[in-house]
Amino acid sequence: MSGAETREAFEARLRRIGAERYHDRHPFHERLHGGRCTLDEVRAWVVNRWYYQSRIPMKDAAFMSRIEDPALRRAWRSRIEDHDGTAEKEGGIARWLKLAEAVGLDPDYVASGRGVLPATRFAVDAYVRFVREEPLLAAVAASLTELFAPAIHERRIAGLLEHYDFATPSALAYFRNRLSEAPRDVAFGLGFVLDHAVTREAQDMAAGALVFKTEVLWAQLDALSHAYVSPGLRPPGVWEPGEGLL
Amino acid sequence: MSGAETREAFEARLRRIGAERYHDRHPFHERLHGGRCTLDEVRAWVVNRWYYQSRIPMKDAAFMSRIEDPALRRAWRSRIEDHDGTAEKEGGIARWLKLAEAVGLDPDYVASGRGVLPATRFAVDAYVRFVREEPLLAAVAASLTELFAPAIHERRIAGLLEHYDFATPSALAYFRNRLSEAPRDVAFGLGFVLDHAVTREAQDMAAGALVFKTEVLWAQLDALSHAYVSPGLRPPGVWEPGEGLL
Repeated sequence: MSGAETREAFEARLRRIGAERYHDRHPFHERLHGGRCTLDEVRAWVVNRWYYQSRIPMKDAAFMSRIEDPALRRAWRSRIEDHDGTAEKEGGIARWLKLAEAVGLDPDYVASGRGVLPATRFAVDAYVRFVREEPLLAAVAASLTELFAPAIHERRIAGLLEHYDFATPSALAYFRNRLSEAPRDVAFGLGFVLDHAVTREAQDMAAGALVFKTEVLWAQLDALSHAYVSPGLRPPGVWEPGEGLL
Repeated sequence: MSGAETREAFEARLRRIGAERYHDRHPFHERLHGGRCTLDEVRAWVVNRWYYQSRIPMKDAAFMSRIEDPALRRAWRSRIEDHDGTAEKEGGIARWLKLAEAVGLDPDYVASGRGVLPATRFAVDAYVRFVREEPLLAAVAASLTELFAPAIHERRIAGLLEHYDFATPSALAYFRNRLSEAPRDVAFGLGFVLDHAVTREAQDMAAGALVFKTEVLWAQLDALSHAYVSPGLRPPGVWEPGEGLL
């Protein structure tokens, strides 16, 4: 049994997982950000990624349902507000549907979840289940992919604005909001994980949870890419180009 | 609200789902049975499909854990014996590892589950969760893909024997045993579903469960095909050709 890593070494290990496994390295993202996606490929991404967005607040509610400490629940609650919105301010899911409209999709079609790839559902549902069932430390550690999100969102905003006609500030509001929301959330989550993962066993569990989460994200792009880019082989019943348009 | 279908019409609807969505239609199976797979593609299939085999008795135990009627548990129990074996007779999982050896893989490597595609795990775990949580009728209906299994196993045995050097009767014992096991199981499962799905709502739920199960199977082949056939893009950390050989 090796001893615990120092706080600094453990944080560096978590960041290495991102450097090696985060989905900014997936070829679909290079294609999207580099302007090489067709409009239908972007639409397929919007249809499928909606499923992930739609499950994030359910995941956060599952987490909060397991927390006895009101202060911790309070710290976590803003994540749900960010996605679902408040009386005064629309949330991330509504902003995602703005993006859907901007690429010519009927937002009601997208919000219906019809046409989502089964593989997308299996991956995303695995994440919700993970947060519902695994130890709380692992559940928080899985959220630390947000450490790596601002960099990809900045590249995405720049790449989409440069290459695609649909990309207006309003269409991209989702990503711009995440630039300020994600760092606040992840500062809390990272502090929690570094404070609580103080044995080697706990550190390994937290690192494993972060690897799991990178797999959830990567698998979504693999499925998307297989169905809509190359070889373009789609399972029965999923979104077909031309479907669900405005 | 439309009324219930007749028993015959409902059974025909279930069989149509198989005709349209069962994974015998997936191009990977055409490739496998037609002798166009490389040995490494067959190995990748064996490594990943092992995960499915390994979870089937866990799925059946989850089902039995919800059944109050000893007679129904007894009828179901043979499925676990088929996969796990008895004191006298090896089971399906051991036979699967014979196939692994026949294609040159270390059975201990395969049984470790290392190298399995995350997308395989997400799909298979979704099936176990479905059987653990959904209504019992849906859980049984999901197992009815076995209606369509004997035909694919017959084609597989013939195709593998014709095209691949590794294919000996001992290597293919898994499939040959399923030829007699699956029809017995499915006769029971089909009778149960036809007896219990007597409202339109229940019939729709059962049909939806069967569609879900076809998605679980199809998604596994999509992931396999994307990672090892075309475009051959593998997520970080999965089985690489040359790994885990005898």
